Amino acid sequence: MLLMEERIRRDGRVGPGNILKVDSFLNHQMEPQLYREIGREFYRLFGDCGVTKILTIEASGIGIACVTAQFFDCPALFAKKSRTKNIDGQVFTAQVESFTHGGSYTVMVSRRFLGPGDRVLILDDFLAKGNALLGLIDIVEQSGATLVGCGIAIEKGFQEGGRMLREKGIRLESLAIIEAMDEDGIRFRQGT
Amino acid sequence: MLLMEERIRRDGRVGPGNILKVDSFLNHQMEPQLYREIGREFYRLFGDCGVTKILTIEASGIGIACVTAQFFDCPALFAKKSRTKNIDGQVFTAQVESFTHGGSYTVMVSRRFLGPGDRVLILDDFLAKGNALLGLIDIVEQSGATLVGCGIAIEKGFQEGGRMLREKGIRLESLAIIEAMDEDGIRFRQGT
Repeated sequence: MLLMEERIRRDGRVGPGNILKVDSFLNHQMEPQLYREIGREFYRLFGDCGVTKILTIEASGIGIACVTAQFFDCPALFAKKSRTKNIDGQVFTAQVESFTHGGSYTVMVSRRFLGPGDRVLILDDFLAKGNALLGLIDIVEQSGATLVGCGIAIEKGFQEGGRMLREKGIRLESLAIIEAMDEDGIRFRQGT
Repeated sequence: MLLMEERIRRDGRVGPGNILKVDSFLNHQMEPQLYREIGREFYRLFGDCGVTKILTIEASGIGIACVTAQFFDCPALFAKKSRTKNIDGQVFTAQVESFTHGGSYTVMVSRRFLGPGDRVLILDDFLAKGNALLGLIDIVEQSGATLVGCGIAIEKGFQEGGRMLREKGIRLESLAIIEAMDEDGIRFRQGT
């Protein structure tokens, strides 16, 4: 999606430790026009898949999921993160390893909102190692729902998450794939 | 907003400890049509106030803020919660007391995204004691921006937050105000 690449080039900043900062438009401040185009693009990609639920994870996936849900006219659902493992049986849970914060956390979704009749599109703002996405996929599988695919705003193509998910046969659509980046610039994967 | 009251009556559940559960449509699963009408209603109420930024707090305010921002065509910004007080000078911070989880946490917003030229609408899903809202208002004041008002999906009118904020002269618009509730039913404040 050219619009996303242009926006990253213009307003993304690569900081120390090779961290991409997109907080001016994607995951702290959220630009309404960009969000609308993200929703429209995911609908163009997955609109014919019979999606009944959009699933994301708190916090920064929620905005993308809600605006995209306006195009699909289906509910959006966000998995909650918790450090506690003491959760009652009313939820599906999965463990997610965290590299940013260390350790692991539990993600959970109420059993009332996912089931065998659902066709689920998973959305998130970032894909790097893919651990959060694996947790969400695990929850979809536990529920008996069908995973239609995953939509990502920005994939870090130099980390292993994207390749790992594609090798599993999961349909993964990333609006921008960063092939390499440093403080001098960002290079995108061609043909995305 | 009749639609919100009807939805709470139909799908809200009052659980043990007098907790209102609205997770089937508002703060876990999020209904696209309801979200659209929430955005439309906040725009009807505040659309002539010259809003330049919508401010909310993670996690469940984010969806409301993003969908409402589509009507205002202005950026939405979410304050991040952190347990750490060691934050650099690039952010506005406020302390918020938490009654659900005990203790207090820090909310923060990057200084780059709020300033004296901004006219801010604060949105959130729930208002009870009003502590999170006070934290957001504190951040707006620190930035020198103008607070246009606060929009809330569901106000617990039997807790003190709403009265306290209105007594400060803050324009507070709640789409549904619950006057009383127990496991037998929910009574709304008239004329909202």
